[in-house]
Amino acid sequence: MPEDGLFGIENLPYGVFSTAERPGERRLGVRHLGRVLDLGAAAAALGAPHAELLTRPSLNPLLAAGPAAWRAVRARVQDWLSGPDAAERLGPFLRPLGAVRMHLPFEVADYVDFYASEHHAAAVGRILRPQAPGLPPNWKHLPIGYHGRAGSVQVSGSPVVRPHGQGRPPRGAETPAFGPTRRLDFEAEVGFVVGVPSAPGTAVPQHAYREHVFGLCLLNDWSARDIQGWEYVPLGPFLGKSFATSLAAWVTPLDALEAARVPPPPRTHPPLPYLDDAGLPPEGLDLRLEVRLNGHLIAEPPFAAMYWTPAQQLAHLTVNGARLRTGDLYASGTVSGPGEDQRGCLLELTEGGRRPLRLGGMERTFLADGDEVSLTAWAPGPGGSRIGLAEVSGRILPAR
Amino acid sequence: MPEDGLFGIENLPYGVFSTAERPGERRLGVRHLGRVLDLGAAAAALGAPHAELLTRPSLNPLLAAGPAAWRAVRARVQDWLSGPDAAERLGPFLRPLGAVRMHLPFEVADYVDFYASEHHAAAVGRILRPQAPGLPPNWKHLPIGYHGRAGSVQVSGSPVVRPHGQGRPPRGAETPAFGPTRRLDFEAEVGFVVGVPSAPGTAVPQHAYREHVFGLCLLNDWSARDIQGWEYVPLGPFLGKSFATSLAAWVTPLDALEAARVPPPPRTHPPLPYLDDAGLPPEGLDLRLEVRLNGHLIAEPPFAAMYWTPAQQLAHLTVNGARLRTGDLYASGTVSGPGEDQRGCLLELTEGGRRPLRLGGMERTFLADGDEVSLTAWAPGPGGSRIGLAEVSGRILPAR
Repeated sequence: MPEDGLFGIENLPYGVFSTAERPGERRLGVRHLGRVLDLGAAAAALGAPHAELLTRPSLNPLLAAGPAAWRAVRARVQDWLSGPDAAERLGPFLRPLGAVRMHLPFEVADYVDFYASEHHAAAVGRILRPQAPGLPPNWKHLPIGYHGRAGSVQVSGSPVVRPHGQGRPPRGAETPAFGPTRRLDFEAEVGFVVGVPSAPGTAVPQHAYREHVFGLCLLNDWSARDIQGWEYVPLGPFLGKSFATSLAAWVTPLDALEAARVPPPPRTHPPLPYLDDAGLPPEGLDLRLEVRLNGHLIAEPPFAAMYWTPAQQLAHLTVNGARLRTGDLYASGTVSGPGEDQRGCLLELTEGGRRPLRLGGMERTFLADGDEVSLTAWAPGPGGSRIGLAEVSGRILPAR
Repeated sequence: MPEDGLFGIENLPYGVFSTAERPGERRLGVRHLGRVLDLGAAAAALGAPHAELLTRPSLNPLLAAGPAAWRAVRARVQDWLSGPDAAERLGPFLRPLGAVRMHLPFEVADYVDFYASEHHAAAVGRILRPQAPGLPPNWKHLPIGYHGRAGSVQVSGSPVVRPHGQGRPPRGAETPAFGPTRRLDFEAEVGFVVGVPSAPGTAVPQHAYREHVFGLCLLNDWSARDIQGWEYVPLGPFLGKSFATSLAAWVTPLDALEAARVPPPPRTHPPLPYLDDAGLPPEGLDLRLEVRLNGHLIAEPPFAAMYWTPAQQLAHLTVNGARLRTGDLYASGTVSGPGEDQRGCLLELTEGGRRPLRLGGMERTFLADGDEVSLTAWAPGPGGSRIGLAEVSGRILPAR
C-alpha cells in the first residue's frame, strides 16, 4: 500500500511545522496524503471553529480545549478536504511534506513510561533476573510505570548521541565500568497525549479517558541497557533512559482510530474496581507496529496484545490524585507480542545480546554508531481503509 | 534568634507574590526581614540592571540569564537596602510578608529526586529490605536518583489530600489492599534550581555547577510508604510519591551561602573521575534543618552529612548528555544524620512504624489527617550571622 493511502481523510494527524522562508515561525499543520495543510492560514482565510487556537506555535491550546473543540476542528478540516472545490480552495495552504521542517507537536509537561506488555515484561524478567519469576508479583495488579525526563523528548529525525555512563564493575573489579554505552537499544512504544487537565486530588476514572486524552503517536524510548542494569535498583531507570526519547512529529486523534478499538487480552487476575474495564467500551487498539533497522524490517509488534489499556493507565496514573496537565505524555512501554518477530526491542530480539540479528551483511546485538531505527504503524480504518501512524526515526551518532 | 535575623541583607531570597488588590497579577519579590520588596516596581522606579527580567510573573527569565545577571541584580538590591535613605526610597515597594500571597517561584521543568544521605539510605535499607545489605552495591559509586512528577510540585502552604492507592496483598490474600494510604510520610529535603540550560549530548562537569545552578529551597517529598512498597519493584517509586511535592516559596541564591560551604564527608570509595571532587572547592553545605510536626520539633537533620554534593548530582544527571532546562529542580533526597534526632522522615524516626513518636499528648507512627509538617533551616552567614531558608509547610486533608 502506498504510504499516501495511510494518511487519508479519515486520519488527519496534527503537527507543528516551519518553512525555509520563515524558519523561526512555527505553525500548526494537518497531514493529508503527502502534504501539510497550514491550519492557521486556512482557518484565517476560510473560517473555522476555534480559529484562535489554530494560529498558535504549538498544539497545547487546542489540546486544552477539549473533545467538543477537537471534533469541531476535525469536522471542518474534513469538510474542506472533501468539498468539490477542495483543490482550488486549499491549494494556497498545502505544502509538500518534504518542503517543511517538523518540530515537537506540543510542549511536553510530564512524561510517564509504562510497562504494559506482558510478553515484554516476562521476557525482560527472564533475561535480566533469571533467578526470579518472569513477572514481578505486582504486574498483573497494576500498570507499572515511572516518570521519565520530559526535557529529553525530541522530534522524529533528531539524532541520538551515544551516551556515556557507568556499568556494573567488571568481574573481580571494585570500580564500575565507565564509557560510552555498549548496549544501546530502542523501545517501540505508543505515546498518549493528554489534552484536558484535571484538578489536584482528583482521580480520573477509566470512563473519562476520552475527555482528557486527545490522541497518540509513536515513540522510541532509547535505552542504554548497561547503564540501566547497574543503576536501577532500588529507584528505577534514570540515566539509562534520560538521554533521549524520540516522538513522532504527528499526533493522530483518538477519533481517527474508532475502527481499531479492540478488547484487550483476557484478564488472568481480577483487577481492582478502578482498573476493571468489564462492561466499558473496549480501549485496546489494533495497531500493527513495524520496526526497521537501517531499512530492514526486524519486528512487527502488535499493540493489540498489550495487557493494560491506555484508559487503565490513565486511571492508575491519577488514582492517587496526581493532577494532569495539558501536554502530559504517557507511553505504553515496549510493545511486544508472543512471536519471535513481534519483539519491540533488541534486548528481546537478541535475547540479551546472546543471539545476534543477521540482516543482509549486517550483524547486530545492540545498536552501532550510524544505525537508524524507524518505527511506523497502521491500524484498520473505516470501510477497509488503513490509518497510518507517522514514523518516528533517529540515527545514532558516536559518543562525544 | 528572631526569624527576622535569618533574612537579613546577606540572604535576600527570591519569590513570586500577588496582592489582595490584584490577585491575578504575579510579581517577583525579594524577602528582607519580615517584608517583601516588589522587585519589578522598584526596578522600574529606581533603575536596575536587567530590569526587563524583573517585571515577569516567574523567576524563569532571571534564572536563564546566568551568574553575571544574578550577581548584578543581587548587588543592586543590597545597595538599595543599605543606602542611608533606604527606608524612604524603598518604602513604597515594601509590603509585610503577611499581606501577600506566595506562589511557586518558578515554572518547574523536570523534577529529579536523589537519595544522597548515607544515613537515610542505610536506615531505609535495613527497615524495608532487612535480608539485604543496607546500601545497594551501586550507592557509593553514583548518586542514585529518579524522575518525579513536576506537575505535582506545589508551593508551601498548599494542602495535601491523603492519596488512595494499592498496597501489598494482606497475608493470605491474592488481591492487593486498596484505600487511603495508612503510611503517609514526609521527607525533609533541599531542592536545587537550575537556571542556565545545557545542550543535548553535553555533560556538565562539577566545576560548572555554579554556572548553571541559581539557588536552593527546602522541599518536602511527601511519600505514601504502603503504595511505594508495593509498586516500586522493578521501575522505582511512582504513585507513592507523585501526589504532592511541596516547595518553599523563596529561593535562596547560592551566593548567599558562601560562608556555609563545607567539604562533604570523607569518601569511602574512590569516585570515578567525573564524580571526583578532590581538589575542587567544597560544595557541601552546612544547612541545619528543623522538622516540626504540629509545632513540635521532631528532628534536626544536618545537610552537611550528605555523602553526595549538589555539584556531583548535577554532573551525574548530565553525564549521559541529558540536557538541562531553566526551571529544572533536583532534590537531595531525605536529609538524615547519624543521630536518632537527625532523621528526616517518619519511616526512620519510628523505625518503620514500630516505635511511635510521643509528642505531648500525641502519638504518631505516620501522619494523621489534620497534621501539619513544617521544615525550616539555617546556615552560617558572614561574620557570625545566620542565613535562613524559608519554611515549607503543608497540612494533610482527609482522603476524598
